[in-house]
Amino acid sequence: MEERVMELFDAKRFSELKELLLEQMPADIALLFEEIEEHERPRFFRVMPKELASEVFALLDSDLQEELICAFSDSEIKAVMDELYMDDAVDVIEEMPASVAKRILRQADSATRSIINRLLAYPEDSAGSIMTTEYVDLKRKMTVAEAFDRIRKIGLDSETVYTCYVTDSRRKLIGIVTVRELLLASLDSLIGDIMETNVIHANTMDDKESVANLFERYDFLALPVVDNEGRLVGIVTVDDAIDVLQEAATEDMEIMAAITPSEKPYFKTGVFKTFIVRIPWLMLLMISATFTGIIIGAFESNLAENAVYGIALTCFMPMIMGTAGNSGSQSSVTIIRALSLGEVRYRDIFRIIWKELRVATLCGLALGAVNIGKVLLVDNLILGRAYSMPVILVISITLFATVVFAKFIGCSLPIVAKRMGFDPAIMASPLITTIVDALSLILYFQIAVMVLGI
Amino acid sequence: MEERVMELFDAKRFSELKELLLEQMPADIALLFEEIEEHERPRFFRVMPKELASEVFALLDSDLQEELICAFSDSEIKAVMDELYMDDAVDVIEEMPASVAKRILRQADSATRSIINRLLAYPEDSAGSIMTTEYVDLKRKMTVAEAFDRIRKIGLDSETVYTCYVTDSRRKLIGIVTVRELLLASLDSLIGDIMETNVIHANTMDDKESVANLFERYDFLALPVVDNEGRLVGIVTVDDAIDVLQEAATEDMEIMAAITPSEKPYFKTGVFKTFIVRIPWLMLLMISATFTGIIIGAFESNLAENAVYGIALTCFMPMIMGTAGNSGSQSSVTIIRALSLGEVRYRDIFRIIWKELRVATLCGLALGAVNIGKVLLVDNLILGRAYSMPVILVISITLFATVVFAKFIGCSLPIVAKRMGFDPAIMASPLITTIVDALSLILYFQIAVMVLGI
Repeated sequence: MEERVMELFDAKRFSELKELLLEQMPADIALLFEEIEEHERPRFFRVMPKELASEVFALLDSDLQEELICAFSDSEIKAVMDELYMDDAVDVIEEMPASVAKRILRQADSATRSIINRLLAYPEDSAGSIMTTEYVDLKRKMTVAEAFDRIRKIGLDSETVYTCYVTDSRRKLIGIVTVRELLLASLDSLIGDIMETNVIHANTMDDKESVANLFERYDFLALPVVDNEGRLVGIVTVDDAIDVLQEAATEDMEIMAAITPSEKPYFKTGVFKTFIVRIPWLMLLMISATFTGIIIGAFESNLAENAVYGIALTCFMPMIMGTAGNSGSQSSVTIIRALSLGEVRYRDIFRIIWKELRVATLCGLALGAVNIGKVLLVDNLILGRAYSMPVILVISITLFATVVFAKFIGCSLPIVAKRMGFDPAIMASPLITTIVDALSLILYFQIAVMVLGI
Repeated sequence: MEERVMELFDAKRFSELKELLLEQMPADIALLFEEIEEHERPRFFRVMPKELASEVFALLDSDLQEELICAFSDSEIKAVMDELYMDDAVDVIEEMPASVAKRILRQADSATRSIINRLLAYPEDSAGSIMTTEYVDLKRKMTVAEAFDRIRKIGLDSETVYTCYVTDSRRKLIGIVTVRELLLASLDSLIGDIMETNVIHANTMDDKESVANLFERYDFLALPVVDNEGRLVGIVTVDDAIDVLQEAATEDMEIMAAITPSEKPYFKTGVFKTFIVRIPWLMLLMISATFTGIIIGAFESNLAENAVYGIALTCFMPMIMGTAGNSGSQSSVTIIRALSLGEVRYRDIFRIIWKELRVATLCGLALGAVNIGKVLLVDNLILGRAYSMPVILVISITLFATVVFAKFIGCSLPIVAKRMGFDPAIMASPLITTIVDALSLILYFQIAVMVLGI
């Protein structure tokens, strides 16, 4: 498709190009748009009919949107913005520099402008920030036939028509009815008789991630959003919920990997920006590793005085810290994900710790036992080292103890963090690893002192 | 709600209970169901009307489903299974022991049984395994009015009615039409004239994750699935796509945290089972840490002979390995997520490496520079150690070199793994950390030998 599009465009066969583009999905055109040379983009954009052009526009990267806006006449801006769904319009404006945003807002009529300004005011992570204001609203006294008329009348401009919202005279949400129910009901039934009155809804200020979780739990296609007075102010649609869920998962993974989350795709983030989101945690973790240095330093006389033990203990240091870190992040990642999927809550903390301690005991025993065999077989027999039994015992006991500690810290810190209002993902791998590193070294050296008497 | 339900149930006020349950969401009833004592569950289940009961049944954990099936009479099993959507029925049967599965299948009529058996045969990760066979199919020659009649007739049993599928006489998919379009068209228009013919579809054998990604990209509510001959055999609905996306994200996180992925929620997985999914990687990583032991062992004479340098270098070992590991997993996690979101592909490999090397250079320079200041200020001045400038230089040069290496390995391994047909997530944190650990130690000691001449 791509080649054919470029061919027609280069040959200026615009009417054929328009036909071809009409058959494509907007998301594919948006992708292809990036391949077009910058100065050609406005011309390409103008080939598309208004409706398609707006759909493609909404899917473009904000840099490209800005570029186009700057190339547009005021009437072109108005044409595009008129066709956009309100939530997409808000997304566009939010990403623009103030001067461009103002120019866009000047093209909107005053009613639209006031809606956009209201939507812009919702906090970034709120349900209000992802909702759209275009939906089909019905009244209790309408018949099914009248409902269909209303859907036909305003349905074209609504993001979804499949769920209709029933409001009273003060715009309070009193029920919902799906098009499926409308189709199965007789045309003279009253909406008030067939509507579902027990409606699950969100508040404008609810966290958008927990709103998105409702879609997963209840298989909704759309969810109504009400203000503090219970008045219907918008709806969230399933496509936006999917985006929120995916963004949340990406964000969790980034935080777990010690990256400050950013919303842009990989290649849209410049080298310097990528450096900026990665360096703070690296710096922090590097500096906090001072602790492990201090711990080793404090033990240095013991290590140096017992050269044989010292070298042996040093050789196993990375393995013990690595195993402890891995054990800890297994627990923390499991709990962080379970928290964000709503599978566990704060009140489960003791049940979680109890379970993790039992799992840790099994893991610690297995690792400790296998370690004895491994050192005797691999290190001593095959590699020809001569680790003595006391040293091997120190390693195995330390393995057991650190795995138990690491899993305890790994499972409890994220829950405590969430309870205190922090993002539990911050407690994942790198930070827990730093704590666990220090702790495992202390345990290691203490156990060495006790068993080896150094 | 929960308390009121239990109150009515204990008081045996079943008709009131039934009314109350009818107002609840099936997902909430399923959750509440787990709180009920085991021997009471079949009785509770029978309170619900057939349709609701089946919806709740589909949402129960498979252990509970099995328990209920065993308590049911044959006719009760038939009643529940008849109401289930085909994809849910298949999900239920898949999780049952063979004897129970057979008993369920015996209750189905032969047509249903053959559909179920066909669906059961699709590989676990295929589009076929998540599709349902209940959808509204239309013919090209139908009018819009006839289409509405058909929706009314078979719509109640279809998982979604909002997208209808147009097939020819040989069941080949030739177009789709949405209810929105039907509502906006005149009643005597022909389906063939208003249908969209450029239909994005999946093949039964397509990977379910890439099918789910199509929902995210194109904002679909449902997607048709065809067999190798282009015949329509089922549809995937957006709620199942969301589940697939969430499962995939969870799986990626688990693999990144060195856990064998499992599909069950946290508390549904027993202690032993949790142990089993966690121990293999811990074991593997522990044993592979033998390499770091060997590297340190090979350097032991140098460390022992130069006691001052030896202890100093040992103190910074955890910091260098930690920083290298964190740098590597930043890159690997970023790339793994970008791969699974479809933001980058194999052909981008050189662009990615080029970008990561520039980011790594910046990170390496920043860390190396800050390290000099930190050691002079914190370690030497505040903590009273006396690290000499050559040692500090060794640390900083090593930091720079390992960050560059770690990021190079972190970004390239996942892409190469994917290209070779492995799950890129396997290349994430723990495995990359092991490689990077070994590599950073080698660099560390080599640089120490060169700079310090030991």
